[in-house]
Amino acid sequence: MPGPAHRMPLVLSMGEPAGIGPEIIVKAWQALRRDGPRFAVVGHAETLKALGSPVRSVLSVGDAEPVFSDALPVIDQPLSAPLVPGRPDIANAGAVADWIAMAVDRVLGGEASGLVTAPIAKAPLYAAGFRFPGHTEFIAELTADVPHPGTRGPVMMLTARDLRACLVTIHSAIRDVPELVTAERVIRVSRVVHEAMRRDFGIARPRLAMAALNPHAGEGGALGLEEIEILRPVAAALRAEGIAITDPLPADTMFHDEARATYDAAICLYHDQALIPVKTLDFWGGVNATLGLPIVRTSPDHGVGFDIAGQGIARPDSLIAAIRLADTMAAARAV
Amino acid sequence: MPGPAHRMPLVLSMGEPAGIGPEIIVKAWQALRRDGPRFAVVGHAETLKALGSPVRSVLSVGDAEPVFSDALPVIDQPLSAPLVPGRPDIANAGAVADWIAMAVDRVLGGEASGLVTAPIAKAPLYAAGFRFPGHTEFIAELTADVPHPGTRGPVMMLTARDLRACLVTIHSAIRDVPELVTAERVIRVSRVVHEAMRRDFGIARPRLAMAALNPHAGEGGALGLEEIEILRPVAAALRAEGIAITDPLPADTMFHDEARATYDAAICLYHDQALIPVKTLDFWGGVNATLGLPIVRTSPDHGVGFDIAGQGIARPDSLIAAIRLADTMAAARAV
Repeated sequence: MPGPAHRMPLVLSMGEPAGIGPEIIVKAWQALRRDGPRFAVVGHAETLKALGSPVRSVLSVGDAEPVFSDALPVIDQPLSAPLVPGRPDIANAGAVADWIAMAVDRVLGGEASGLVTAPIAKAPLYAAGFRFPGHTEFIAELTADVPHPGTRGPVMMLTARDLRACLVTIHSAIRDVPELVTAERVIRVSRVVHEAMRRDFGIARPRLAMAALNPHAGEGGALGLEEIEILRPVAAALRAEGIAITDPLPADTMFHDEARATYDAAICLYHDQALIPVKTLDFWGGVNATLGLPIVRTSPDHGVGFDIAGQGIARPDSLIAAIRLADTMAAARAV
Repeated sequence: MPGPAHRMPLVLSMGEPAGIGPEIIVKAWQALRRDGPRFAVVGHAETLKALGSPVRSVLSVGDAEPVFSDALPVIDQPLSAPLVPGRPDIANAGAVADWIAMAVDRVLGGEASGLVTAPIAKAPLYAAGFRFPGHTEFIAELTADVPHPGTRGPVMMLTARDLRACLVTIHSAIRDVPELVTAERVIRVSRVVHEAMRRDFGIARPRLAMAALNPHAGEGGALGLEEIEILRPVAAALRAEGIAITDPLPADTMFHDEARATYDAAICLYHDQALIPVKTLDFWGGVNATLGLPIVRTSPDHGVGFDIAGQGIARPDSLIAAIRLADTMAAARAV
């Protein structure tokens, strides 16, 4: 596995400037400047500089390497309206979206080895005409024409400690989940996760654990039929194509220490089934990674924190973990 | 608060004799004999004796006290068929049900301060004509004519470390959960839990945390309407009657260390929402307690373990925790 010196740095999109993004980016740089993964930010240099740490304007992500231990490298971009922490301005939404697109371009161009996205606020983006549900779909669109070996995502993966929890449905009401858990979705997600475990994590023979939808995995049909009608046949079909995946397991038996040691990734069927164990195990350090894209992409698993923006109290744990994870995944892809 | 000497011992129903119950009962007695809560078993003395520890036949639960440090006290009852570990016999199902009923009687008669039930197997009980979904409903029926101050349960509570998770729905398919989460059910469960925190746990001003049904607590209606239509009005109504309960919270933000410190009990809406955090936090030591009954009742939160019965490898952690919790609750009621 080549060391950091053999790979390009990461690129980090600054996200919503009125949120905690700028603050946690500076804090992450402080934590990583000596021996952590290198990165350059695409965003507004003045906003970052105002937080009191040295900032250096660079033109290319590759220029981050020699600068990084002394100053936070930034590919400087303008803002349209003055910044008030905690008060997003629709006038800046275009810039926020542009930074993401520019950062993606830097990865696609080979200048950066992976992308880390700081949080964005959806309301001002929507108000400004942004037409994607979120970051993930936007990045999937930006990379849609780029060749991707294997099954294409995006699939959302959340990590906490040694848990990798991958989602079949994400932002859906519980009422809608049973209809959305189709054989096609579970198969596609499982294939993406299997391939990502090999390519992005270097696991030669990934072991997947499938969560059941119903309590006690349906208890033989007494507590729901989805395990019998959909999930067990899907698991059998996936095994027949060489993917090592369990039959659907009672979800409450999957997430303690001994259980997690038996698999590399969990296939979870709905948001809270994945997020409850992730945030119970590590509330501050969870990371969101997007699998099945032509580029490596991770993100902290929290929002913009308007309520605490500008106070200096935001915790960078999740962003730091996201940077480290992107670096790990980029290293595996580089092998 | 009176010490153990001032209260009657607990009574423990032996449960399915072909499961791990007898083994974990003997192991729990070994762990508790010196300074743990005292108890007597209602069950088959010969089966317990065969496990190699001293057993003493007693006629009354009260007789357990002087015996307990030297031998496991048993109110001896016959079995109808010889025992094969791992192979339940329908002929013994009547005895299993009788032991529960006898144990309940001992509590109602004042001879025992609380009930701990070892696991039962439902299939042989059903085959023998048992007409209750499980332990909890059977015990509720056995105590239905006994006066109970306040709101009557049963409400299932699962504990792990400092988490008390109480369930609005229990053994229901996810597909059925949204219809079952009615205002009436949430109100009844919350009242039972509020009263139980005061009476069984000595918490003068209980703080309840209500879990949302949908991810992000429905995100203002974008991810489901139950929070707006049912849960928020219910929370407001409960607060108006003096019960300190939160508005519905995103369930993934409720179960890490800092979050748990902010409340005494969580009101969870479906099985895995409660059981995932409980078993992630403490897979082996979780306890099931029934709130809102005229008697104190706890149980280990695992099954009969036919697959490992008779091998000597069953872990008594959950039963020991159940005995300790019943003792704590009985002590609080005795004040």
